[in-house]
Amino acid sequence: MTEIRIALPDWVAAVVPWSQPCSTAEARMDVAVTLARENVAHGTGGPFGAVVYDLASGRPVAAGVNLVEQARNAVLHAEVVALMFAQSALDRYSLHAPELPPHVLTTSCEPCAMCLGAVLWSGIQALECGATRDDALRIGFDEGPVFPASYDYLEARGVQVRRGVRRAEAAAILKTYRRSGGIIYNG
Amino acid sequence: MTEIRIALPDWVAAVVPWSQPCSTAEARMDVAVTLARENVAHGTGGPFGAVVYDLASGRPVAAGVNLVEQARNAVLHAEVVALMFAQSALDRYSLHAPELPPHVLTTSCEPCAMCLGAVLWSGIQALECGATRDDALRIGFDEGPVFPASYDYLEARGVQVRRGVRRAEAAAILKTYRRSGGIIYNG
Repeated sequence: MTEIRIALPDWVAAVVPWSQPCSTAEARMDVAVTLARENVAHGTGGPFGAVVYDLASGRPVAAGVNLVEQARNAVLHAEVVALMFAQSALDRYSLHAPELPPHVLTTSCEPCAMCLGAVLWSGIQALECGATRDDALRIGFDEGPVFPASYDYLEARGVQVRRGVRRAEAAAILKTYRRSGGIIYNG
Repeated sequence: MTEIRIALPDWVAAVVPWSQPCSTAEARMDVAVTLARENVAHGTGGPFGAVVYDLASGRPVAAGVNLVEQARNAVLHAEVVALMFAQSALDRYSLHAPELPPHVLTTSCEPCAMCLGAVLWSGIQALECGATRDDALRIGFDEGPVFPASYDYLEARGVQVRRGVRRAEAAAILKTYRRSGGIIYNG
């Protein structure tokens, strides 16, 4: 057990419009929601998707889907996966640097406590969320100790937060997942 | 960029007493603190170490050190690394199961917001911390939105928390790191 390897399912690369700029939160969220939906449809993980975008070009830098079950690794929520691959793509641990454009993380559901912390360390400058914490809780997913003060903390450190983008579409995937008997993998 | 590989520095395996049971929090913390100290001494990362122990046998299951700089991956705090390798060793995303003994995560410093969330999803049933959040803040490391209510949240879900184990020894490593000009890699 000397190495852990993290790979995205093969279908992900084909679903993300890598060369097509997305200039609105809604357009970006459509991709995150598609990733969540396809992850369930392909049986490759939980109903969550996330994308890191370069806000200058509008292009996706990296994508993530929930890989907890598939990889048997509870850290691999969609947001963490997208952030890790973005850091890998840029070969740096922080996406916040004078020579870089700002980046946004667009996620199909409000981040859990772990992912919210990961956003902070990633140097991401904006966060866009689809479904809400309550939407996730309603189907049984615990989101951990995230409080209104947690979002204040992000904002105070320069992370702009927008919530409820395409909420209905994002929440619908959670309900579909639950109805289909999808595993709820809290600790 | 189709795969991310996470590996521990070579020296880690030799530092962890894999076959020697540790039956007290202090003995377990000595190993976590040694990992933190050696990570700085070897120049392989930040001043943080963590170990997952099987509480029935007292034996280490997996170890982690901070790999943020080395791996250029902001997610790879010592706690996350130790949890990922423990999940990998047991080939499951949750260490909480009727057929498994309880596990403890022993970390040289109180977890940041991300790591605290990761503890919750890992199925770990106990958390032992060395240096405090204030010790980390004092040398410039942001710990993110962790509140007293965050610990209450863990405890309410069955995670027993003990703080301040070998605090002086653990905090001393943070100070040494700072004095030696170690990088403070907040987002």
